[in-house]
Amino acid sequence: MSLDVFFSAKSIAVIGASREPGRVGNVIFTNFLRPGFKGKVYPVNPAATEIMGRKCYASVKDIPDVIDLAVIAVPGQFVPKVIDECGKKKIRHVIIISSGFREVGNTKLDDELKKALARTKIRAIGPNCLGVLDTASQIDTLFLPPDRLLRPKQGGISFISQSGALSSAVLDLAAQEGYGFAKFVSYGNAIDVDESDFLEYFVNDPATKVICIYIEGVHDGKKFLAAAQKASRAKPVIVLKGGVTEAGGRATLSHTGSLAGAAEIYLGVFRQANLIIAHDLEEVFDYMKIFEKLKVKPRGDRVQIITNGGGYGIITSDEVAQSRHLSMATLGIEATKLLKKQFPPIAVISNPLDVLGDATEGRYQLAIDACLKDKNNDILLVIMLPQTPLLNLEKLAVQTIEAAQKAKKPIVAIVTGSEFATRFARRLEDHGIPCYEFPVRAVRALDALAARST
Amino acid sequence: MSLDVFFSAKSIAVIGASREPGRVGNVIFTNFLRPGFKGKVYPVNPAATEIMGRKCYASVKDIPDVIDLAVIAVPGQFVPKVIDECGKKKIRHVIIISSGFREVGNTKLDDELKKALARTKIRAIGPNCLGVLDTASQIDTLFLPPDRLLRPKQGGISFISQSGALSSAVLDLAAQEGYGFAKFVSYGNAIDVDESDFLEYFVNDPATKVICIYIEGVHDGKKFLAAAQKASRAKPVIVLKGGVTEAGGRATLSHTGSLAGAAEIYLGVFRQANLIIAHDLEEVFDYMKIFEKLKVKPRGDRVQIITNGGGYGIITSDEVAQSRHLSMATLGIEATKLLKKQFPPIAVISNPLDVLGDATEGRYQLAIDACLKDKNNDILLVIMLPQTPLLNLEKLAVQTIEAAQKAKKPIVAIVTGSEFATRFARRLEDHGIPCYEFPVRAVRALDALAARST
Repeated sequence: MSLDVFFSAKSIAVIGASREPGRVGNVIFTNFLRPGFKGKVYPVNPAATEIMGRKCYASVKDIPDVIDLAVIAVPGQFVPKVIDECGKKKIRHVIIISSGFREVGNTKLDDELKKALARTKIRAIGPNCLGVLDTASQIDTLFLPPDRLLRPKQGGISFISQSGALSSAVLDLAAQEGYGFAKFVSYGNAIDVDESDFLEYFVNDPATKVICIYIEGVHDGKKFLAAAQKASRAKPVIVLKGGVTEAGGRATLSHTGSLAGAAEIYLGVFRQANLIIAHDLEEVFDYMKIFEKLKVKPRGDRVQIITNGGGYGIITSDEVAQSRHLSMATLGIEATKLLKKQFPPIAVISNPLDVLGDATEGRYQLAIDACLKDKNNDILLVIMLPQTPLLNLEKLAVQTIEAAQKAKKPIVAIVTGSEFATRFARRLEDHGIPCYEFPVRAVRALDALAARST
Repeated sequence: MSLDVFFSAKSIAVIGASREPGRVGNVIFTNFLRPGFKGKVYPVNPAATEIMGRKCYASVKDIPDVIDLAVIAVPGQFVPKVIDECGKKKIRHVIIISSGFREVGNTKLDDELKKALARTKIRAIGPNCLGVLDTASQIDTLFLPPDRLLRPKQGGISFISQSGALSSAVLDLAAQEGYGFAKFVSYGNAIDVDESDFLEYFVNDPATKVICIYIEGVHDGKKFLAAAQKASRAKPVIVLKGGVTEAGGRATLSHTGSLAGAAEIYLGVFRQANLIIAHDLEEVFDYMKIFEKLKVKPRGDRVQIITNGGGYGIITSDEVAQSRHLSMATLGIEATKLLKKQFPPIAVISNPLDVLGDATEGRYQLAIDACLKDKNNDILLVIMLPQTPLLNLEKLAVQTIEAAQKAKKPIVAIVTGSEFATRFARRLEDHGIPCYEFPVRAVRALDALAARST
């Protein structure tokens, strides 16, 4: 089964479209009117004749066009009837945003919906979900308006989430921080298409470079393990599991009705499938960034640190030494000889390689060039504290980006500071150099990278 | 010995003041010309007659005024001679920014400086340091200009750092994120006043609410232990030690010439003194925030979570359950009864208390009021995902601040999202509600708080 239509439909009906600003059916319909979406969209609402200047239809059956995908945002009790109408209109795919099903204990309505889907042979995402966001096609069924939830730019992350609110916060923050997304799906109750289906789909999606999944429970353990193993062989798959403790587990039961199950069983499955296990949301961000931004893989685990802050080099060395999969590189003899000639006599030519507090971008260039040529390391971790006035950040950005584009090993940066530092970091990231605010976050990400690469 | 003069001098000489923008002696002198500093400042430089419109003196001896403090930014080799002149001028306190001493292997110059200080009985900070920043007196000897290093606003954190570059990055980021500082000192080689002296001084400083210290090594172990024990009994003391691994330890030796020593010995001393041990820089930020912002201490370790995101509540519960010193509260019978009446039937009245995705600020108010009254918890951890359009953030901020101001237990918030979310969080923080971007960071900070309070 291909899920393509959910992400690339050209002709969409919004059933439950609304004229009232802020309402779910209004936000979703309005999303499709933005210039980014190139397809056609039709509002359906028996109580309106026109919405946002578009002719509104009383029923999906009245639309004088073929419909690829219906987005359903009517009150829960009307959904089974709407599905039947979609069936008559020969619609094969629906996204059901509506809630009021199993998640509130209404299993009767769940059963009715299941039967409706079965008799119409319609494939459904939801109910009780945010649906999908595709940054290429600009299909966007998120009912949170852009002034409250920034949409991320196009990129390589595809995100699968069982939770709506959690993923809203993730998308909003990730967009702010310059993460690039391919596809996003909040699948809610998963009455039909489930997390394993999405995993399988994203493996073959050329726009997806890294998959990230938030789950509280899975619908079919065997299916999940098979999908996860297959996915992980092809692409990095980051997983965050909600409910790994008894307290969290109790909460999952009331949240999505999932039996969170024994955490150990889940973690065992994740390990068996070689997933990248995130222990908290911050790790999700750290891992997403490194796997999305980097254009080359490391050939080994040896990290060479370059720094303009002695203390920063020390605490970063401590992190590397305490990591699970990384080791400190030993600076090669040739690089050492060369840099001893080029650097002031008090500079420490070692690992960390200290370019000193008065470093200019020129000294960084010498250091990065020498370490890129040095065969005794596999990864460059470059600390750039931008507070010193001698550092021309414009030139430093240009030359570091140039170096990274030619480099056959990953360059990862640590940049700490106020807004100008963040702007500098975002610029590096847009050209394939992941930047982290704190050493611990950079090293954690590198650790996951090394675990997967070596 | 009181170190007051270093932070509150009214009459200051900048020896080595420079006319050239960006030069160390220029940035430092210019700092004192800003409207914030209310004292008098005199430039000293034999090569100039006037700097920035002020009469410049060839020697500190020529200044026709009493001088409380001299800031010395001349090349290292001239420092001993300058100290003798300061002695003749009856100056009792100097901050030596200049480098070129022990840190570059010049122990001869170190000895000369030591002798000069001994014969003049002058107390010195430095050399090879950034010196001090006092947000009240606006004494600011940092040679990094404000467009590269934001100065933090007035507040309760006092920061002691052995490393200059590390602390520049910390100050710049902390200022951006709204942390409030009382005093900051980068003490460099500590030829005279050392980390233990500052610890002792900050204990009795009424502006200092929480002390934070970054060290690679200490100059006198016994003195440090005594000072740390005394300090920690009075105020929270956060410590980050650089060089806790062999790799990091090797780097400290070349950085500040400190023998980092066996990490275990240091950690033992920190524990004995009941310091709050930060394992990385991110933890430093997390701990500084909670101890500076909170106005009340918790009476116990029981955390009640309130959330508008089910998944967020779950992962936060997982964090609490996995913490060392916190426990999940059990929502009391009265609070449960009351909220069951007030909340929609599908709401989960428990811990986490789910105010649901369609929560308005009104529902938050009911939840916070009920949980503040409930005697079955000691700490409220309130997750506010601001993406949902039904939440009026203006009203939510006002009412939450009001509640926190009356509350006898701490309220800590988790707010995740883009810029508008950050603005909302900063506003809460300005009124005593620490906000964290990720559950793991909030719970880590609460864990340290509970360890110290209970």
